[in-house]
Amino acid sequence: MKLARCEYFSTGAFWAVVDVAQDQVTPIAGDFEEWAPAVAAGRGISSLRFSGPALPLSKVRLLPPIERVNRVVVAGANYAKHLVEFGLSAPAQPVAFLKAYGALIGAHDPIRFPPLTEELDHEVELVAVIGSNEIDLENPLASVLGYTVGNDVSSRDLQRSGPPGIGMDLFAAKSQDRTTGLGPWIVTKDEFPEGSPKLRLTLKVNGETRQDGNTAEMTWDVGQLISFVQQRSSFACGDVLFTGSPAGVGMGTGLYLKEGDVVEASVEGIGTLRNVVSEKNRG
Amino acid sequence: MKLARCEYFSTGAFWAVVDVAQDQVTPIAGDFEEWAPAVAAGRGISSLRFSGPALPLSKVRLLPPIERVNRVVVAGANYAKHLVEFGLSAPAQPVAFLKAYGALIGAHDPIRFPPLTEELDHEVELVAVIGSNEIDLENPLASVLGYTVGNDVSSRDLQRSGPPGIGMDLFAAKSQDRTTGLGPWIVTKDEFPEGSPKLRLTLKVNGETRQDGNTAEMTWDVGQLISFVQQRSSFACGDVLFTGSPAGVGMGTGLYLKEGDVVEASVEGIGTLRNVVSEKNRG
Repeated sequence: MKLARCEYFSTGAFWAVVDVAQDQVTPIAGDFEEWAPAVAAGRGISSLRFSGPALPLSKVRLLPPIERVNRVVVAGANYAKHLVEFGLSAPAQPVAFLKAYGALIGAHDPIRFPPLTEELDHEVELVAVIGSNEIDLENPLASVLGYTVGNDVSSRDLQRSGPPGIGMDLFAAKSQDRTTGLGPWIVTKDEFPEGSPKLRLTLKVNGETRQDGNTAEMTWDVGQLISFVQQRSSFACGDVLFTGSPAGVGMGTGLYLKEGDVVEASVEGIGTLRNVVSEKNRG
Repeated sequence: MKLARCEYFSTGAFWAVVDVAQDQVTPIAGDFEEWAPAVAAGRGISSLRFSGPALPLSKVRLLPPIERVNRVVVAGANYAKHLVEFGLSAPAQPVAFLKAYGALIGAHDPIRFPPLTEELDHEVELVAVIGSNEIDLENPLASVLGYTVGNDVSSRDLQRSGPPGIGMDLFAAKSQDRTTGLGPWIVTKDEFPEGSPKLRLTLKVNGETRQDGNTAEMTWDVGQLISFVQQRSSFACGDVLFTGSPAGVGMGTGLYLKEGDVVEASVEGIGTLRNVVSEKNRG
């Protein structure tokens, strides 16, 4: 099942079940945290009530599938080949940090070009969506509602601007307003084999493939990342977890994003974010 | 004027004007973001409507004065003598990061002792509360509603656990559930002289002074910190900004927090957080 957060003209944001073949979204009744735990527990579409008739998918705006009240947690350093691009050796444990909600954009929104950066970069990632307030450290995947696609757009020059001894400035690099694509929808976990997903993920710029990896290459799988974060700072229902990006980013190749670039981030079995880089200084 | 976020038995959270001398809190009508901009603009108590009779201050629970939807931004490396405690030299610019909302506790709540740490530390800080969605980079203090007190409790061993080359793990160190005191209330900025506040801030453990500094010692003042953050990731009305801590933390002295410690963090003209450190592994 595909679950999207949408806007239809002036309706305000709503959650809906997506039927791509029928070009339909059907609005779900109730708050996310009321219905998401039942879906995460595997009770399927029969656990949902609907609040109105279907609307045309092609006419709705796809919003990032997360409420403003929720957290965006990003785990990094999770693909060995990507670390080589930063001159880093394999760490003993993952690293996690928070991204500002205001950094998020939907599947087809423009990527704002932040005025402070000259090195705007892409990072396609598998993103896990938490569907419960209870995380079992022995079975962390039980709390997952499903998966979506993220493009953790990063300003590399700002990332290096952190004070010596403190480290990378991940806030400046990765929380810039309206830069990080998330969506187009959540695919519930029952559509994938059990365990941490093993899915191809790719990123294209103007049709040219820049990143091509597989989530099976992760150093720490989705369950291990959830447990790592949960032991440090608890998840709530609706929080999302970015799980790291494979090799091929501009930091390694020198090919940074430019105004007008068409950026397509895809994860097999989920979908594609297609975002165009805005002109700089257009707010 | 003092503005608190409170809970009175089972009322749920509400905002109120505090009268300490009369032992009263008077509930404010409307949402924070409806009334805060008028107060931030200097229109005072006459810009508020009240939703009910006064309640006894001594009977309410003081909650952290921030809604869950808002961001907790922390600026660090802002007092030169504190940096010496970490063996760091003065950086060329501030550093900022996000703290999880779930890390916050109110003025008299227990400090949870996180199970993963052996080095639990204190950091008294002046905290600015943003009262507008519009930040003028030329006059950033115009967007400030007022100031409150923070104790940015940190797990130093986890802070050092970040991967080499990436840097300090500020998420693990500073986003642990229910550790960071914030309150007891917001004192509106009209109660202080114009400009960045110059206020004594102290922290005592079991009555013994550990930190004793003045916000006038900041490397970057409140306005400069707001502008720094705003250029990287926009503030919203209700967000808070921790502005760094002076020298005297356990990282420098070796005196870390222990179970049962009574921790009092005070800023002159605002008030005192008094939090007791819980037993470890009590959830």
